[in-house]
Amino acid sequence: MKFVCKKNDFTNSINIAMKAILTKTTMTTLECFLIEAKDQYVSLTSNDMQLGIETKFPAEVEDEGIILMNAKVLYDFIGHLPEEKVEFESDENNTVLIFSGNARFEHQGLADEEYPRLPKVDFESTINISQFTLKEMIRQTIFSISTKENNKVLTGELFEIRDNELRIASLDLIRVSIRTLKLEENYDKVKVIIPGKTLMEISKVLSSNIEDMVEISFSKNHVKFVFGDTIMISRLIEGNFFNIDQMLKNNYETKIVTNRNAFYGCIDRAALLIKETDKNPVVMTIQDDEMKLEIKSSNSSMNEDIPVQKEGKDLRIGLNPKYIIDVLRVIDDEDINLYFFNSNSPCFIKNEEESYIYLILPINI
Amino acid sequence: MKFVCKKNDFTNSINIAMKAILTKTTMTTLECFLIEAKDQYVSLTSNDMQLGIETKFPAEVEDEGIILMNAKVLYDFIGHLPEEKVEFESDENNTVLIFSGNARFEHQGLADEEYPRLPKVDFESTINISQFTLKEMIRQTIFSISTKENNKVLTGELFEIRDNELRIASLDLIRVSIRTLKLEENYDKVKVIIPGKTLMEISKVLSSNIEDMVEISFSKNHVKFVFGDTIMISRLIEGNFFNIDQMLKNNYETKIVTNRNAFYGCIDRAALLIKETDKNPVVMTIQDDEMKLEIKSSNSSMNEDIPVQKEGKDLRIGLNPKYIIDVLRVIDDEDINLYFFNSNSPCFIKNEEESYIYLILPINI
Repeated sequence: MKFVCKKNDFTNSINIAMKAILTKTTMTTLECFLIEAKDQYVSLTSNDMQLGIETKFPAEVEDEGIILMNAKVLYDFIGHLPEEKVEFESDENNTVLIFSGNARFEHQGLADEEYPRLPKVDFESTINISQFTLKEMIRQTIFSISTKENNKVLTGELFEIRDNELRIASLDLIRVSIRTLKLEENYDKVKVIIPGKTLMEISKVLSSNIEDMVEISFSKNHVKFVFGDTIMISRLIEGNFFNIDQMLKNNYETKIVTNRNAFYGCIDRAALLIKETDKNPVVMTIQDDEMKLEIKSSNSSMNEDIPVQKEGKDLRIGLNPKYIIDVLRVIDDEDINLYFFNSNSPCFIKNEEESYIYLILPINI
Repeated sequence: MKFVCKKNDFTNSINIAMKAILTKTTMTTLECFLIEAKDQYVSLTSNDMQLGIETKFPAEVEDEGIILMNAKVLYDFIGHLPEEKVEFESDENNTVLIFSGNARFEHQGLADEEYPRLPKVDFESTINISQFTLKEMIRQTIFSISTKENNKVLTGELFEIRDNELRIASLDLIRVSIRTLKLEENYDKVKVIIPGKTLMEISKVLSSNIEDMVEISFSKNHVKFVFGDTIMISRLIEGNFFNIDQMLKNNYETKIVTNRNAFYGCIDRAALLIKETDKNPVVMTIQDDEMKLEIKSSNSSMNEDIPVQKEGKDLRIGLNPKYIIDVLRVIDDEDINLYFFNSNSPCFIKNEEESYIYLILPINI
C-alpha cells in the first residue's frame, strides 16, 4: 500500500474514527484502525463492538492495499508531523513507513485478519435532519440518562418518530428530559433506544453548521448516521422504554414565568450549599409575584427572592438545585416557564410549543 | 465586625490568600482565613505552617473586628455573588452574614483563638527585582526540582546572592537548571534553599508586568516576598545545597548551534516513542553540519536530520528526550547552543552570557 495525502485531511479522519477505539481491551485489533487505500480515497474503520465508524479522505493512491495499525500510535505520529505533505506506505511484512519533511516514522502494523468490519444491515426507515439540530437535541437531553448499568434501558435515549415528529427522551427515575422536532413530512413509526455513549461520541463530531445534514436510518437492532464522508453504525439497546406520555399532564395548579439568567444565578448560589453528605433541597416559596428560595446546610444557609409572573395558586416545594441547573444550562430562552401541581408532584419546565419538556421530582420538606 | 467592599477586590485577595490554605488537615483553623477589618482595610491571612500569606484590600469599615471563616466557603460565596457591592458582617456569636443584591448568605464562623499568625522575623538582607523577572526565573528552573521527599534539599531551589548577582538553581541528580540575574548594586552574600511549593504558589500570583516590583528579604530560617498589598513569608529548607560551581566547566569538545523550533519539533516527535515501560534514549549523531536523531521502541522507530552549525569534534550521545523538551519549552531564544564533552558527560544547554545554564546527564548507548 502506498499513498500521499494532506496531514489535515488525515488528522480530521483520525479524530472522527478515534471515537470508536477501545483503550482498555485484550483484543489488539480493537485498538487498531483498519486503513484501506482504494480508488482516490483512504478509509479508516474503527469498531468498539457497540459503535462502528467508517470515514474517508482524498489521497493520491499509488498502491491500493489494506492494513491494521494501532490507532493511538497513528494519532500521535500524524498529529506531530512537521509538514503538510504525508507519505504513507506499508510492505509485505506489514511494516508501516510514514514520511513528512525530514522525519521518518516506522511502525509494525498487523495483517487484516478477523477485523470486525461494519455490519451489513438492511435499514427500514430514514430521516434527514440538520447536524446542528441533532447535536443540540442530544445536548439538551443526554444529562439525564442513568449511569447505572443495572437498568440498561435507562443508559440510552429513546428516539421515537410518530407521523411528522421526532422525539428524543432520557430519564433516570428522578427526572425526565424530552425534546421534540417537527419533520418536513410524515414517516412510519419508529421507537428505538440508542446507547448514551453512541450519542455522546456522535455529538462530538457533528458539525455546528445548521445547513449540514445527517441521514439517520433505523433497523430492528441498529441505527446508522451518515454525514459528510462518515458512517457511524451503532447497536440499539433492547427492551421497552418507560411510557412517557403517561407522565405528561396539563392540569397544573401553578405556573410561573421568570427570567432565566436571574433564576440560574440564584440556583447556582443555592447549589453551593449542597454537599455529598448533606443533600438538602432548595425550598421555593411562590407567593404573589415573588419566589423566595432558601437552602440550609449544617453550618450555612442562603436565601434570595426573585420576581416571577404567577398564574394559579401559591405553593411551597423542595427541589434538588443541581437538577434545576442541569436544565437551565441547556435552555437558551430569555424567560422560562415552570408548572406545578402540588408539593409532591413533579415540577415541569417547558416552553409553550413543548419543543422541550423537563420533569423533576420534588424532595419532601 | 461590619464592612462594605467591592466583590472584585474581595475576590482578588481571596485568590491570593487561598495559596496557603490546606485542604486536607485535621486542624480546622488552617482551613480558615483570618479576616480582620481595621482602619479602611480588610486583611486576609492564611497559613499552611510552611507558607504564610497576608493580603489586604480597601473597604468601608463600619465596625472593626476579626473572625475566622472557612476559606473554601468564603471563596464559593463571594465568587457567586450577584452584584459588585458586598456587605459583610459578623455578630458576637461569630455568625457571618453576607449580603449582595437580593442574596443573603449565613455561615458559622469561629473565634480568633490560637490562629497561627505570620511569624515576626528580623530580616537581614533585602533585594528588589521585577515581579515578572522572578516569575520567569522560577518557571525556567522549577521543573527540575526533585519530587522525592527523601532528599529534602532537592525539593527546594537554591537562591544565592553573590556581589551583584542573584542565582537560582534546582537539581534532581540527573539534571541541573540555573538562572542568573545581574542586580543593580552589590549585596552581602545570601545562600538559602526555598521550598519548591512556596515558589510555585508565589509565581501564580506574581504580576506579569515587568515594572511591578517585589521585595525579597532573607533571614536564617525565613524568606519574605512583599509585592502590592501582599506579604508572603515562607520557611526555608535546612541543609546544604550541592556545590554547583564544581559541576560547571568550559573546556567542551563539541559545540552546536541549532534552530530552537526545528529542534523542539524533532525532539517532540522522538518523545512519542518514550513509554513508561520502555525508556530508550534519543541517539543524537553530530557529523559535520548535520545532527541525526534516532529513537526506537519495541515496535516503532523514528529518525530525522536537522541542520546544525558545529564547532569541534563529531559526537554520538544518548539523551532522554523529555529532559530536552523541559528545557526547550522554557527558552525563548531563536537559536540554542549545546555543548558536549564526550558521550558519558553531561550535555550543556546555555546562552553566551550564561543567564541560563542547563545540564542533562546522558544515557549509555
